Amino acid sequence: MIEPVESKGYFVRLLTLFHLICLINFSSVEARTRHHKWEVKYEYKSPDCYKKLIITINGRSPGPTIFAQQDDTVVVELKNSLWTENVAVHWHGIRQLGTPWSDGTEGVTQCPILPGETFIYKFVVDRAGTYLYHGHYGMQRAAGLYGSIIVSLPEGVSEPFSYDYDHNIILNDWYHASTNEQAAGLSAIPFVFVGEPQSLLINGRGKYNCSLSTASGFAAGVCNTTNPECSPYSLTVVPGKTYRLRIGSLTSLSSLSFEIEGHDMTVVEADGNYVEPFAIRNLYIYSGETYSVLVKADQDSSRNYWATINVVARKPATPTGLAIFNYYPNHPQKQPPTVPTTGPLWNDTTSRLAQSLALKARQGFINTPPVTSDRVIVLLNTQNKIDGHFKWSLNNLSLILPQTPYLIALRENLTDAFVQDPPPDGYDFANFDIHSVAKNVNATSSNRIYRLRFNSTVDVILQNANSMTVNNSETHPWHLHGHDFWVLGYGTGKYNLSCDWRKYNVVNPIMKNTAPLHPYGWTALRFRADNPGVWAFHCHVESHFYMGMGVVFEEGIEKVGELPSSIKGCGESEGHHRP
Amino acid sequence: MIEPVESKGYFVRLLTLFHLICLINFSSVEARTRHHKWEVKYEYKSPDCYKKLIITINGRSPGPTIFAQQDDTVVVELKNSLWTENVAVHWHGIRQLGTPWSDGTEGVTQCPILPGETFIYKFVVDRAGTYLYHGHYGMQRAAGLYGSIIVSLPEGVSEPFSYDYDHNIILNDWYHASTNEQAAGLSAIPFVFVGEPQSLLINGRGKYNCSLSTASGFAAGVCNTTNPECSPYSLTVVPGKTYRLRIGSLTSLSSLSFEIEGHDMTVVEADGNYVEPFAIRNLYIYSGETYSVLVKADQDSSRNYWATINVVARKPATPTGLAIFNYYPNHPQKQPPTVPTTGPLWNDTTSRLAQSLALKARQGFINTPPVTSDRVIVLLNTQNKIDGHFKWSLNNLSLILPQTPYLIALRENLTDAFVQDPPPDGYDFANFDIHSVAKNVNATSSNRIYRLRFNSTVDVILQNANSMTVNNSETHPWHLHGHDFWVLGYGTGKYNLSCDWRKYNVVNPIMKNTAPLHPYGWTALRFRADNPGVWAFHCHVESHFYMGMGVVFEEGIEKVGELPSSIKGCGESEGHHRP
Repeated sequence: MIEPVESKGYFVRLLTLFHLICLINFSSVEARTRHHKWEVKYEYKSPDCYKKLIITINGRSPGPTIFAQQDDTVVVELKNSLWTENVAVHWHGIRQLGTPWSDGTEGVTQCPILPGETFIYKFVVDRAGTYLYHGHYGMQRAAGLYGSIIVSLPEGVSEPFSYDYDHNIILNDWYHASTNEQAAGLSAIPFVFVGEPQSLLINGRGKYNCSLSTASGFAAGVCNTTNPECSPYSLTVVPGKTYRLRIGSLTSLSSLSFEIEGHDMTVVEADGNYVEPFAIRNLYIYSGETYSVLVKADQDSSRNYWATINVVARKPATPTGLAIFNYYPNHPQKQPPTVPTTGPLWNDTTSRLAQSLALKARQGFINTPPVTSDRVIVLLNTQNKIDGHFKWSLNNLSLILPQTPYLIALRENLTDAFVQDPPPDGYDFANFDIHSVAKNVNATSSNRIYRLRFNSTVDVILQNANSMTVNNSETHPWHLHGHDFWVLGYGTGKYNLSCDWRKYNVVNPIMKNTAPLHPYGWTALRFRADNPGVWAFHCHVESHFYMGMGVVFEEGIEKVGELPSSIKGCGESEGHHRP
Repeated sequence: MIEPVESKGYFVRLLTLFHLICLINFSSVEARTRHHKWEVKYEYKSPDCYKKLIITINGRSPGPTIFAQQDDTVVVELKNSLWTENVAVHWHGIRQLGTPWSDGTEGVTQCPILPGETFIYKFVVDRAGTYLYHGHYGMQRAAGLYGSIIVSLPEGVSEPFSYDYDHNIILNDWYHASTNEQAAGLSAIPFVFVGEPQSLLINGRGKYNCSLSTASGFAAGVCNTTNPECSPYSLTVVPGKTYRLRIGSLTSLSSLSFEIEGHDMTVVEADGNYVEPFAIRNLYIYSGETYSVLVKADQDSSRNYWATINVVARKPATPTGLAIFNYYPNHPQKQPPTVPTTGPLWNDTTSRLAQSLALKARQGFINTPPVTSDRVIVLLNTQNKIDGHFKWSLNNLSLILPQTPYLIALRENLTDAFVQDPPPDGYDFANFDIHSVAKNVNATSSNRIYRLRFNSTVDVILQNANSMTVNNSETHPWHLHGHDFWVLGYGTGKYNLSCDWRKYNVVNPIMKNTAPLHPYGWTALRFRADNPGVWAFHCHVESHFYMGMGVVFEEGIEKVGELPSSIKGCGESEGHHRP
């Protein structure tokens, strides 16, 4: 722990104390239970200098980082202190082996938590790595309800790479409209898109150009660039030392490029899995992904450097997000003498695809996939209309979650809770033109799900297409709950079922829980349906999921233990929740 | 039905059709069931020309008026289509005889209705009169969730006064901050009051001075004074005819004075009870009250007149609310040639007190109160602090609703759902100085309730006091659920238990469900605890109730029938809700 020369001494001392406590905790050998008491509520905050009402956990957004050691049990006693809103929190990247009811996905694995209620999440973090948590109800994630989970290795086990210090960096994009306002626009006729974010946040701090804000009334004077809440995050490094940066993104919309001025980075972890190291100048990171990169403080130490995030994959209309890579003993808030980079070309899909393809499992840590799969599900990603509303669909079905969460409905045989017919495993491959706006863009709302044979191997081919805008195909980071998948390959154009499987990397594919689908391209994933439960698989863009861009997988429901009554109480399970 | 000369022909025809349908409905003799299907959701509306997200019912705010005939059963099938918020709707002035579970008071008579759920309210409207409905969860009433209930007399029964036509006028005050933003301020340290409203609404229409608005970002261009949504309500009258105006107020904060330029009004109904008629130039109306006044179109018919509402009892900072009293055949939107009145002096408490005292039961319709009461509960109304938060208290207890609604807790003997000790029936009469800021302003949060002997007669003396501001005592309209009470008297200063009862009017007191407590004064009410159930009694100022200004009465719980499972599902009743 490095003590900066001046300022924030109190906080630094607190942090030091905290780190010491962590060290003490981490020094015990046995897996143990990590108890957290959280209160979720609305508070005024100014993450990017613009004051607005956001959802905090224990007064903070991002919420407190959960530190644990592999095989620990994490218990989060979450009190909903919102006034009229329910809540649910998802533990992103945690597989919930044996505890599918703790996945925190409203409508899939639980009923929402009512205001005033306390809900207990309890799950084992079975693998070391960098994970996330966030709201999974309505668009509450975008309201500030998110944070990090850091799981360390068991005692005596070391990482296959070395570093001196570890820092956590969580990225986000930020909107000034409330989530209700965002949802209202998305649901309106005519459609009003949430638009590009007002700012980008690094560890919950951004900088909005207040001169653009002329807010009045209740919000008068709410934008203040000197508010310490929005001073840039400063990452202090000691010259010559190597840092592991654990970087996670929970953006609502934006794909990002992260870089540290003048410093190479080496990618070593992705979504909790070791990566065969490779060097980069900039890290492309999509919503729902985490990476660890190693960076050495090997540059001129007389100055600070910009750490930047920039929007890619959409035409940027948001200023660069800034943090300070602070060489000790410079002042942590001392501005670097340079102009921050605006990042790579936003539409350089080739470069992003190349980085996606560069991710491979680390030698010695390869989990070899089954050579073949038992089932191939091709999901055509399209933008559509239903009754005049804009939607996103898979094979022309747009997901609407049922009133009774699937896990409860399936475990308790409430067969009328959702439509039992399966959704299609493919689309009209022969006739669909992915490169132009579809002729008939109407789709159907659906709550049907994919039921997978337990322990079978499933391939999912995500097929991108033109959106409803000419010459536009968007980027969709797809996140799978309850599993890691092998990323078998990425390609451009229409996936060819008869031959594109030959391009798969089945030797050392990386395993992840989130992978991008690039514009006009395809992404091929494989996973074992070996985790009894019901699992969402969806685009991690908040507005896209809101607009139906997801599917649900069931596997081994008969192996799921008795459901805790705490997850029940809504839809047809209203009588099933015992206090 | 009068057809204006031009404009809005389509709507007028629709209205005509609607009136015809109503006439057809009303013409049948038997009490019947009135079915309503409501969808509650957020939509962008511009009630005062300023576009904001509000809660609508079937796309409207105020919501659809419920028309029924005495002894009809009203059924409202309410679908909650909010995204993450629960909801509950209270039927204000309806006593819910035999159906205490349909009172719609979250935390008292029901669990909130979850998003996606449909809840069925079913109750008998046993008395003709003018009533209201509104959200009774969090501050949702202030978000636009409100409307009117008009109950007509049985066939063959006439009113004791005559008029040609009937018009419904619902008044409100309006804020541009969201209810979450308002609640956040009220809960913050330091306290941020909701402040004076931005505008006043007559039948959901007001006029904000858009030049004051410089809203930016998502809200850009949201204030537009030419938006037809905010054209003033126009009340068309035929010269020489007499109109019954049914006027209700559901303001969040404001006490109002209503008047029609150049026209006297005769008060004939208050909260569903006939009033001994008296003439007024302006009607003082407090949140939660309804009145019927008769007004004759007996002025120069070549022009229109302003109908106005102005804030009283607080120093006004809100422009006059305007409607047009339109003499046929002038154009309904033709501006009157005069400057609208700014109303009576806001701090003329004497005049308001005089009008309160002028309300008496109509000869021939007097429901004589019991001469004495079995119990006297004196409630000292004070502003306080609890853990640094501003609160309102009664006898130093500030109400917080329990997680398990009282009705369920009491009916099902869940004795740990709230603290069983009763709150005090009085305060330190001898030593408390109501005219200055109290020395110790700390209070205690409480969920204790008053349990009343069934069929006993209860007096409630509301005692006002200085707030936490020097030389300030506020006006509180107190509303009782499940009953009408006799208004026995009003006085100024500290109520004297030994002699002030001599001032009571026990001959012809008006019965009401809402009565004001004037600054530094007292209000004496009497009611029979004859309605089995659990009933809220609270200040109808939205922010005051939010800050704890209410008590709860239980009576005859053992006579309450089996509770519908639909009201359950929260707190300790989580396992009790059967689908």
